[in-house]
Amino acid sequence: MTLHLIGIGLADEKDITVRGLEIIRSCDKIYLEHYTSLLQCTTEELEQFYGKPVKIANRTDIENNMQHILDEAKKQEIAVLIIGDPLAATTHVNYLIEAKKQHIKMNIIHNASILTAVGEVGLELYKYGKVTSIPFAESETPYNVLAENQKQHLHTLMLLDLNPKENNFLTIKEAIEKLEKIESAKKGNFLAADLIAVARLGSTDSIIKAGTIETLKTIDIGMPPYCIIIPGKMHFVEKEAVELWKQK
Amino acid sequence: MTLHLIGIGLADEKDITVRGLEIIRSCDKIYLEHYTSLLQCTTEELEQFYGKPVKIANRTDIENNMQHILDEAKKQEIAVLIIGDPLAATTHVNYLIEAKKQHIKMNIIHNASILTAVGEVGLELYKYGKVTSIPFAESETPYNVLAENQKQHLHTLMLLDLNPKENNFLTIKEAIEKLEKIESAKKGNFLAADLIAVARLGSTDSIIKAGTIETLKTIDIGMPPYCIIIPGKMHFVEKEAVELWKQK
Repeated sequence: MTLHLIGIGLADEKDITVRGLEIIRSCDKIYLEHYTSLLQCTTEELEQFYGKPVKIANRTDIENNMQHILDEAKKQEIAVLIIGDPLAATTHVNYLIEAKKQHIKMNIIHNASILTAVGEVGLELYKYGKVTSIPFAESETPYNVLAENQKQHLHTLMLLDLNPKENNFLTIKEAIEKLEKIESAKKGNFLAADLIAVARLGSTDSIIKAGTIETLKTIDIGMPPYCIIIPGKMHFVEKEAVELWKQK
Repeated sequence: MTLHLIGIGLADEKDITVRGLEIIRSCDKIYLEHYTSLLQCTTEELEQFYGKPVKIANRTDIENNMQHILDEAKKQEIAVLIIGDPLAATTHVNYLIEAKKQHIKMNIIHNASILTAVGEVGLELYKYGKVTSIPFAESETPYNVLAENQKQHLHTLMLLDLNPKENNFLTIKEAIEKLEKIESAKKGNFLAADLIAVARLGSTDSIIKAGTIETLKTIDIGMPPYCIIIPGKMHFVEKEAVELWKQK
């Protein structure tokens, strides 16, 4: 019996790999972790495509009831579906550690992650510093991460908060205003140059736009999920790529 | 008409996404870039699975004859298959820039990359510094990258050189000996602690082993491709993960 951690990619039901799909179809029970990201399709569309029922796992299930899922995997074939790549975020490394400790067979199916898909923007992946999120709530954390990355000349990827259940998504404009407010309070200077705003990266209708904070606050880039990228020190090829995103 | 850059993942023909497979099957011409990495299957197995002929593109085709491929994409549906994710490496960002300049429609299908699959090792992805390769030839570059990353407390991912055409693969032992030789010449001290050796990451029979350089020189981790990871400063959860790879 095996616990399968399966990445389902970034956009919709067809982003699963052929191998991942075969495994899902052979599993006894399928969980979908659905609180950290957003697909461009519904759970019903996933179920229809897989031909299997999919149980939504909320934050409590995954983080606190991990042992319950591990126990099930001792007796059945269990799939835990994760949007993006299953091990790009640290949360799921705990599965790996616990499964190994408890001698539960584990199978990992990798997939596209926002951390590599952001390569599309044209900034070198290894020059990104720590990734951060901009939450709905007031928080200085994203700005502090940005400041730390900037000091090391690194690019910063910021994921904008979302609450798919309540159809609530932090917009690019709201996120920039939050950053500006903290920058102003801290008398910082990290938002002066061009920023990059991204929507639905990894889907066929993704949009990438570059511009000043004033420009980006006014643009419409359609439906979520959203990211903001703040470049650190750029090589000339990176600058050339950013210039392209300034055009209409 | 469109140029499709399609990531085919890390191991074999079934690592393509369902969307990627559909596109390949609808394309007029399919190129496979085959010199930067290695699959666990043959080109014939890809062709059989896709139901389409696949033309191997060598380094000259892709880097120097990019314009030829771009021109074809003005008149036909062209797929360029790339092992891993299509935009994790900078080479392919040039496609993006040129296609945009020349108003050629571009479609990107992301997939798993070694850069995120290495998350399986349990070290935080954002704490990796610059990625480097250890070539067959004498080169101080990988050691210099390691030194730079270590000074910033960052982890280092080293990809071991390969020449699939001639069935030649730098082994873990050979790579470590190269690093030791440079360390000794430079009187450095970056190879003292535990290292991690990885084979076939992203495939179902991948192996991860941690240990001292002396231990890793003696282990057998099967077929390539190989990577070495040299941890920077580790958080306790990262240390716990590394400990797991020391066990048999």
